[in-house]
Amino acid sequence: MALKVYLSGEIHTDWREQIIDGAQGLEVSFSAPVTDHDASDDCGVAILGPEEKKYWHDHKGAMVNAIRTRKGISDADVVVVRFGDKYKQWNAAFDAGYAAALGKSVIVLSPPEHQHALKEVHAAALAVAEEPRQVVEILRYVLTGTLPG
Amino acid sequence: MALKVYLSGEIHTDWREQIIDGAQGLEVSFSAPVTDHDASDDCGVAILGPEEKKYWHDHKGAMVNAIRTRKGISDADVVVVRFGDKYKQWNAAFDAGYAAALGKSVIVLSPPEHQHALKEVHAAALAVAEEPRQVVEILRYVLTGTLPG
Amino acid sequence: MALKVYLSGEIHTDWREQIIDGAQGLEVSFSAPVTDHDASDDCGVAILGPEEKKYWHDHKGAMVNAIRTRKGISDADVVVVRFGDKYKQWNAAFDAGYAAALGKSVIVLSPPEHQHALKEVHAAALAVAEEPRQVVEILRYVLTGTLPG
Amino acid sequence: MALKVYLSGEIHTDWREQIIDGAQGLEVSFSAPVTDHDASDDCGVAILGPEEKKYWHDHKGAMVNAIRTRKGISDADVVVVRFGDKYKQWNAAFDAGYAAALGKSVIVLSPPEHQHALKEVHAAALAVAEEPRQVVEILRYVLTGTLPG
Amino acid sequence: MALKVYLSGEIHTDWREQIIDGAQGLEVSFSAPVTDHDASDDCGVAILGPEEKKYWHDHKGAMVNAIRTRKGISDADVVVVRFGDKYKQWNAAFDAGYAAALGKSVIVLSPPEHQHALKEVHAAALAVAEEPRQVVEILRYVLTGTLPG
Amino acid sequence: MALKVYLSGEIHTDWREQIIDGAQGLEVSFSAPVTDHDASDDCGVAILGPEEKKYWHDHKGAMVNAIRTRKGISDADVVVVRFGDKYKQWNAAFDAGYAAALGKSVIVLSPPEHQHALKEVHAAALAVAEEPRQVVEILRYVLTGTLPG
Amino acid sequence: MALKVYLSGEIHTDWREQIIDGAQGLEVSFSAPVTDHDASDDCGVAILGPEEKKYWHDHKGAMVNAIRTRKGISDADVVVVRFGDKYKQWNAAFDAGYAAALGKSVIVLSPPEHQHALKEVHAAALAVAEEPRQVVEILRYVLTGTLPG
Amino acid sequence: MALKVYLSGEIHTDWREQIIDGAQGLEVSFSAPVTDHDASDDCGVAILGPEEKKYWHDHKGAMVNAIRTRKGISDADVVVVRFGDKYKQWNAAFDAGYAAALGKSVIVLSPPEHQHALKEVHAAALAVAEEPRQVVEILRYVLTGTLPG
Repeated sequence: MALKVYLSGEIHTDWREQIIDGAQGLEVSFSAPVTDHDASDDCGVAILGPEEKKYWHDHKGAMVNAIRTRKGISDADVVVVRFGDKYKQWNAAFDAGYAAALGKSVIVLSPPEHQHALKEVHAAALAVAEEPRQVVEILRYVLTGTLPG
Repeated sequence: MALKVYLSGEIHTDWREQIIDGAQGLEVSFSAPVTDHDASDDCGVAILGPEEKKYWHDHKGAMVNAIRTRKGISDADVVVVRFGDKYKQWNAAFDAGYAAALGKSVIVLSPPEHQHALKEVHAAALAVAEEPRQVVEILRYVLTGTLPG
Repeated sequence: MALKVYLSGEIHTDWREQIIDGAQGLEVSFSAPVTDHDASDDCGVAILGPEEKKYWHDHKGAMVNAIRTRKGISDADVVVVRFGDKYKQWNAAFDAGYAAALGKSVIVLSPPEHQHALKEVHAAALAVAEEPRQVVEILRYVLTGTLPG
Repeated sequence: MALKVYLSGEIHTDWREQIIDGAQGLEVSFSAPVTDHDASDDCGVAILGPEEKKYWHDHKGAMVNAIRTRKGISDADVVVVRFGDKYKQWNAAFDAGYAAALGKSVIVLSPPEHQHALKEVHAAALAVAEEPRQVVEILRYVLTGTLPG
Repeated sequence: MALKVYLSGEIHTDWREQIIDGAQGLEVSFSAPVTDHDASDDCGVAILGPEEKKYWHDHKGAMVNAIRTRKGISDADVVVVRFGDKYKQWNAAFDAGYAAALGKSVIVLSPPEHQHALKEVHAAALAVAEEPRQVVEILRYVLTGTLPG
Repeated sequence: MALKVYLSGEIHTDWREQIIDGAQGLEVSFSAPVTDHDASDDCGVAILGPEEKKYWHDHKGAMVNAIRTRKGISDADVVVVRFGDKYKQWNAAFDAGYAAALGKSVIVLSPPEHQHALKEVHAAALAVAEEPRQVVEILRYVLTGTLPG
Repeated sequence: MALKVYLSGEIHTDWREQIIDGAQGLEVSFSAPVTDHDASDDCGVAILGPEEKKYWHDHKGAMVNAIRTRKGISDADVVVVRFGDKYKQWNAAFDAGYAAALGKSVIVLSPPEHQHALKEVHAAALAVAEEPRQVVEILRYVLTGTLPG
Repeated sequence: MALKVYLSGEIHTDWREQIIDGAQGLEVSFSAPVTDHDASDDCGVAILGPEEKKYWHDHKGAMVNAIRTRKGISDADVVVVRFGDKYKQWNAAFDAGYAAALGKSVIVLSPPEHQHALKEVHAAALAVAEEPRQVVEILRYVLTGTLPG
């Protein structure tokens, strides 16, 4: 068994690297959105031409990014959705809903203080973790049956 | 043609009533989540028994609410997702993702100040409105071909 | 909103009647398997001709019953699966798996002593109740937003 | 032609090893749930933190195990479901229902004494075997057209 | 519970009338192909213009008939496929395969002498009957739980 | 049997009225895009606010119109796609592709001079007609088995 | 581009070998049912135990063969269905219907004398050939754009 | 991440070569229709026998070409649809609709003068480009996160 895992959500800390590093040696292939914030914001106008209105500037970028996001989620067996300490992170919640509707196994990675606000998202998840290490442990257990420690 | 419309998101203002009132006379049937905040939070433990931990208290409620939410979204032709001025509103974004993955026509109702943070959600929508009145006008146009004014 | 509910599982107590009675006045339509035990066992051979081997006797009946079961589950919004105090009840667990794979909202109705043995089935449910009354309360809440008491 | 086979059900005897050994040389890849009983029971709390209530202890584990189970069944061409001599084995019946609803080819492996109780599960199967050897013979025949003896 | 039943296959005897008459009083709605043989053969050219080649004459008719056939089978809960004593009846077998792939409940109505030649079709059916009366009895049992006699 | 028919394509002649009039008395319900050309072009900006760029003016309108178009096609049993004498009519061909991918029965209504250019669209249709009268005759035949004349 | 092709139908002549030989050098992988007539008839009882009644003897075999057939058709891009000069060949027509409902590209290989009887099957095909050589030419053209001669 | 890209539409300029050349070094595999105009027009009759009527000549060819087109679009993650300066190009718009209904990421490549006529097609696309170079830049960004310049 090999797992395809999509890492959705917060792009300001190194949680993706922690998971990818921790999963070394496991049969997992990871995908993720473009995590270069500026490139992600500007990709639409940089490639397809400038827009005066901020709305269309953002819209063209979000559409181009959707090519990658949809592919990543559609191909995934497991979608990990990370909520961080700040920002609205509606795209993370959107991805969680999208993944849930496709029947993907969703793992939410979120701090305890967001628990109540995330209860509907948690209710669609098979696991709710607080630390990237726990996501790695889940992947290891799912693939090998081995528990930590 | 008759439309089934699910009204997702913010539950603290009367936007649902405005849309339902405005759509009087159109062939639209509306559904929505339970909008009684306390009932929505406590339904799980009130029916299925108390929990000491807040997490499971919330979880049981979110699962029971999901029975209604899934039914409403799955049956809908159009899902209107409202983002208000405050709160995290991750459940709204989750519903938007869920609806998008099911191929529903999504209309987002959000204030201009959230434009950038909602760009991925907007990118999955067929219309982005700022006022409930505009949602009514879309429904009227879609059903009758009549424009406002 | 109106709900279609399929009542699967144990056929030796009056739990179906309790739920149907309790749900009087709600917009719910119920379906269920044939609950006449003898008819259910013999329907295949009674209609399509006798079999000497018990296996084929049972098989013909199970196939004819599947016409009703599949229809009921496929049409349902909610599938209630009842596990009683005795018997193997593998057909109940089979229905739960079938319903879960179709994305139905599953409610399990089971006594506390079966909790551990049913944990995989519970994990696929949106609610786990112990009493028929609780199922009614869930249906009432989902349809009207009203909590008991 | 190559087959992906998921081996669901009873974890107390060596039936999986018998099938895997017997299928040596055939183009079959096998997957299965975690068969370490203790790890399977405790994986949720071991990774995601302890629970006081037995119900949530079990629930967290069952959810984590579902990541593996869903992946295995969804990817499979053939799902073999084994019922042994004891225990409730509702998870086996649940897997059979889940696999049937996804249109998988189901093979049931069960002792004759369970025949009547399993008749609905058998009715969803393409083969009902009593011995692991017969499952191997089916896989060999399906892949190579060769019958035993 | 109400059933939609499509009556596919042989058009030279009154088996459809026997079933429809027998099912009087049951909640069943029936559909069927056009059973006027000449109209069925000529509908394409009669409406869309003549063809010199027999192949295209037949093709245009078969395509127009497919509008009705697909609708009937797609909407049906149960597809009854009748094989008579003569003719090739490949369209009946085609409909059975089409219905099976859509997950419909298939009932085959065929004379005993065709048993071996129909074994693959029978294997996809939930019931194999020899008489129209038996089909009626199945429908009555499925809808009401009542056995004949 | 009752048919839902979506009438897609050219909006400059009265072909829709001819079909709807001709089908009086048949169990057919029709839907169609908004055929008021100006309203259809301007609906986006009239409701959701003006755009300076023609591209976004058109885009907002096309998205709002898609709410109606998708609903109409998704609900339809039969999609009639009309190509007229002039204009690009790419939206008609787009609708034909969309309908074909959803497995709808497609009827193309097109003049003989477009035959070669439409060959890929014709190849996805169950009937190719030149006159609205022929579409009516198909609907009548499909519903009643009656041929013209 | 590489194609997966399932070769369904008649097993008494060497048409499969002709196609496989002719397609040497093309990126095609072929699958087919078990073509050893005796093995195919007896596989059920040979593996799962004897049956006195011919019906169940055949049934057990047809069910086991269905494991292979479903896998082959489900995985295929193209399903070639061959009708020969004799026998009922209802399984071939069944496979054609099954493949059509799954949206597979169907090629029918049949002699001219069966044209009228096969018109519904032909109507679901993208090509109707009379010689295995033509099937090879289609595969070559589809994969390489090269026409014969 | 690797992308499968289908290049649909206009076959008279070298836009496909420009994209394929530009995408050298990226993990992209391309497919496309047969772009030899004569072969594409004549494939049906060249392989399956001549037709007197132009309609059936074209029809047989379009059906054979559909084997390749459906495979290409169904397998693709991204479908690029090119509209050129002349011809009707209804097959391009048809492919766009087909791809959109399957949930593929659609990129339209079209000259500015067709903007209004293509607005419904553009509304179903995630990107609208004017130059093949921009398509390459999108593919590079989606796969590597790198923007041009």
